[in-house]
Amino acid sequence: MIRLADLAANQKLTFKGDADVLIESVATLENAQANQISFLANSNYKKYLTSTEAGVVILTESMAKEFDGNALISENPYVTFAYVAQYFAVQQKKASSIHHTAVMAETVQVAEDVSIGAYSVIGDNSQIGQGTVIHNQVSIGDDVKIGRNCEIKAGVKIESGCEIGDRVILHPGAVIGADGFGLARDKHKWVKIPQTGVVILGDDCEVGANTTIDCGAIENTVLGKDVKLDNQIQIGHNVVIGDHTVIAGCTAVAGSAKIGKNCLIGGGVGIVGHIEICDGVTVQAMALVTHSIKEPGSYSSVAPLQPTKQWQLDQIARKVNQLEKKIND
Amino acid sequence: MIRLADLAANQKLTFKGDADVLIESVATLENAQANQISFLANSNYKKYLTSTEAGVVILTESMAKEFDGNALISENPYVTFAYVAQYFAVQQKKASSIHHTAVMAETVQVAEDVSIGAYSVIGDNSQIGQGTVIHNQVSIGDDVKIGRNCEIKAGVKIESGCEIGDRVILHPGAVIGADGFGLARDKHKWVKIPQTGVVILGDDCEVGANTTIDCGAIENTVLGKDVKLDNQIQIGHNVVIGDHTVIAGCTAVAGSAKIGKNCLIGGGVGIVGHIEICDGVTVQAMALVTHSIKEPGSYSSVAPLQPTKQWQLDQIARKVNQLEKKIND
Amino acid sequence: MIRLADLAANQKLTFKGDADVLIESVATLENAQANQISFLANSNYKKYLTSTEAGVVILTESMAKEFDGNALISENPYVTFAYVAQYFAVQQKKASSIHHTAVMAETVQVAEDVSIGAYSVIGDNSQIGQGTVIHNQVSIGDDVKIGRNCEIKAGVKIESGCEIGDRVILHPGAVIGADGFGLARDKHKWVKIPQTGVVILGDDCEVGANTTIDCGAIENTVLGKDVKLDNQIQIGHNVVIGDHTVIAGCTAVAGSAKIGKNCLIGGGVGIVGHIEICDGVTVQAMALVTHSIKEPGSYSSVAPLQPTKQWQLDQIARKVNQLEKKIND
Repeated sequence: MIRLADLAANQKLTFKGDADVLIESVATLENAQANQISFLANSNYKKYLTSTEAGVVILTESMAKEFDGNALISENPYVTFAYVAQYFAVQQKKASSIHHTAVMAETVQVAEDVSIGAYSVIGDNSQIGQGTVIHNQVSIGDDVKIGRNCEIKAGVKIESGCEIGDRVILHPGAVIGADGFGLARDKHKWVKIPQTGVVILGDDCEVGANTTIDCGAIENTVLGKDVKLDNQIQIGHNVVIGDHTVIAGCTAVAGSAKIGKNCLIGGGVGIVGHIEICDGVTVQAMALVTHSIKEPGSYSSVAPLQPTKQWQLDQIARKVNQLEKKIND
Repeated sequence: MIRLADLAANQKLTFKGDADVLIESVATLENAQANQISFLANSNYKKYLTSTEAGVVILTESMAKEFDGNALISENPYVTFAYVAQYFAVQQKKASSIHHTAVMAETVQVAEDVSIGAYSVIGDNSQIGQGTVIHNQVSIGDDVKIGRNCEIKAGVKIESGCEIGDRVILHPGAVIGADGFGLARDKHKWVKIPQTGVVILGDDCEVGANTTIDCGAIENTVLGKDVKLDNQIQIGHNVVIGDHTVIAGCTAVAGSAKIGKNCLIGGGVGIVGHIEICDGVTVQAMALVTHSIKEPGSYSSVAPLQPTKQWQLDQIARKVNQLEKKIND
Repeated sequence: MIRLADLAANQKLTFKGDADVLIESVATLENAQANQISFLANSNYKKYLTSTEAGVVILTESMAKEFDGNALISENPYVTFAYVAQYFAVQQKKASSIHHTAVMAETVQVAEDVSIGAYSVIGDNSQIGQGTVIHNQVSIGDDVKIGRNCEIKAGVKIESGCEIGDRVILHPGAVIGADGFGLARDKHKWVKIPQTGVVILGDDCEVGANTTIDCGAIENTVLGKDVKLDNQIQIGHNVVIGDHTVIAGCTAVAGSAKIGKNCLIGGGVGIVGHIEICDGVTVQAMALVTHSIKEPGSYSSVAPLQPTKQWQLDQIARKVNQLEKKIND
């Protein structure tokens, strides 16, 4: 529970309204109660601002002027909401402990304050940094390095040799360092190319549930710092992704593609192999990137949704044929 | 083994032909033998009707008239086939047992007739309803409620706080309640928004292998009753899906989308966040739904398949340019 | 370490340059050192040929003529690279061992030289062939047959009854034999169709991380020999895939589709159910295959990538409307 004035001071922000209103938790505009703080970041939800019962709303200065209630004023209400929500998120980290069923090679180096869950397995010479939490049924191969204050959720698999930075979160079922898809066609059969590289994840990366990142074929697959991957993503071998790039769910990045820094890649996107995307590119959902992108900006390739029977392309084609007839007649 | 007449009585249907023919199992029209029952539901397979050796075929009344053999007559042969196949599916449920390697917190409440497989782990205060079967290597967090007669297959992960109704089936590798993808951009880095909601699955839901359903950011991710999800699907945080909606494999539903009741969403579809799809909508495979859909009906957005070098759009563009020249000349 | 002349003899190839140069490992053209061998297979990388420090480069005869350094000459440098990389890949297979935590039914048949990792579970009557390695936390159901010299990586789940050939590799998190998505709509609810078939994988198949292959509904889901599946793929029930076909990541193949031999299916492709694709078909990334393909060749259906605001289709539509006006005036 915190007073609005104290919360504003804590966040180094100004406020408007009752300095003494007490806030206990965060909520949506639509469902907030008098002891909760909410925010307005998406204009779709502006309709709820007049009716909200939130004790405080995080708003821009101009929006705050239109609002009768208490407001915490921020240039970027969504970012402020993130910090406020972190403030309220109960920091109920359990005391560190290593479950007696965890199987660890003798050569594993475990720093202080590490937790390891039931039925997790860690191979030879792997290192686990201070404060890291490994949940249940995690598989970690040999020679893996995991940094400090990471969270490795249930059922994650990290293959041998991979390196994970500090404060990295791997969500349930993620697979780090599986073999890349390297095949050469010899007349009568496929020949497997040994995948001898590893995966290197920079500090502050987050990898979604059931996402897969392949190890490099010869060199490594490398994600920079603060790269955020959603669920169900496939990252091929030798891919390089720059700092602060974010990729939404179900996207596939083929082998040896290079993605720059500060890119926003939508969900269900396909990026073919051996191309480069420069810094600062946005790719819209479900686009297929078939060639290198050298200019920052927003790119897309998907046709608009249509009622099934009025397929636009067919319509245009028909119209063009009629015009052609007309002209030729 | 059952006589056709008895099977018809069991299903409250009529039949045509030999009342005493004995049926032992189900089969496809193409490969059925004299002691098997088959069905015709997809007209692609009508060609096999004349040559089938099935002892009985489930047919509509009009199809039965064209057919010389024994028929079980149904208004909906596919539904009847489903019930008949259930009849023959050996109900060889093993005796319930809790494997000695299962790790359960002392506070777990396990009802009668529950099975728990090897190396499964269940956290504090979780509840498992009567008749539920939990297979091997399942991870269940704290405060999880699982209803009656559920089946939780190998390697499923259910994160803390999630609620699962009765008769729910979760297939291998499914992840229920991983963190949603909530990030706010503060100038120099991404700030994680704590994901404090849970996932609520209604009765009779089915979740496919390696499908992921994220927990809500503030409120919950909610699937109604009898929602059926295929494999490799991604459901974002705060998504709401209505009763009886079915989604095919590899589809991605972004955060805070609302999908109505009785919808049929094809495979590989993308649904962007913060939109609403009304009841009774069909979305064709691989369509991208970028805005709310307010009318029931069928929607699609994918260009037709073409031999690679004759890309239709290019053709049309070329034609239009030629026409333009012609007109201007 | 091997002399170039010896390596050439080993590979039954000719070479050019210093017979005595010693090679220790493989590397990319860009980063190779004097004791390494590289290759040129993708013309994008030709630019590195003049500056490479590789001790030897694998080249075609014509490329070797343009190259001043040592070359191993091959009609297909990529295939030769694959074999050479296999030669150098340290064959450090650990001694076979069955971890004391592995849970195996008494009726399991394990051949000689089999390894089984920690916390893996194998059900009744399953058979594991000679030389096969099962890693940690693998779940194998009842009546499963696994051939010789297979590698089953961490966290793989193989459901009851499935049959796996020789030399098959299943990558982490793959699910073999989960229930197919079989539902019939009875007025008020969905009726589950029992999925009583299994999955049969031929010799030399490879299945990527977190890929899912459903069991058949009545008959089986069958992959021929040397079928290679990348990560995050969904194969529906009753699908049949011919020998030597390769499928890239995130592709979905719906139920009862038949794919021929020697096909190359790109990433993110959708193949609808109940259709047939003949031998020798290439499908480009993210295409949707909605009908049977009867002629070998290359097929695609995706619109080209565009800066978001210059959507080509809209442009053409506008132009056509202008033309129409012009003509009508």
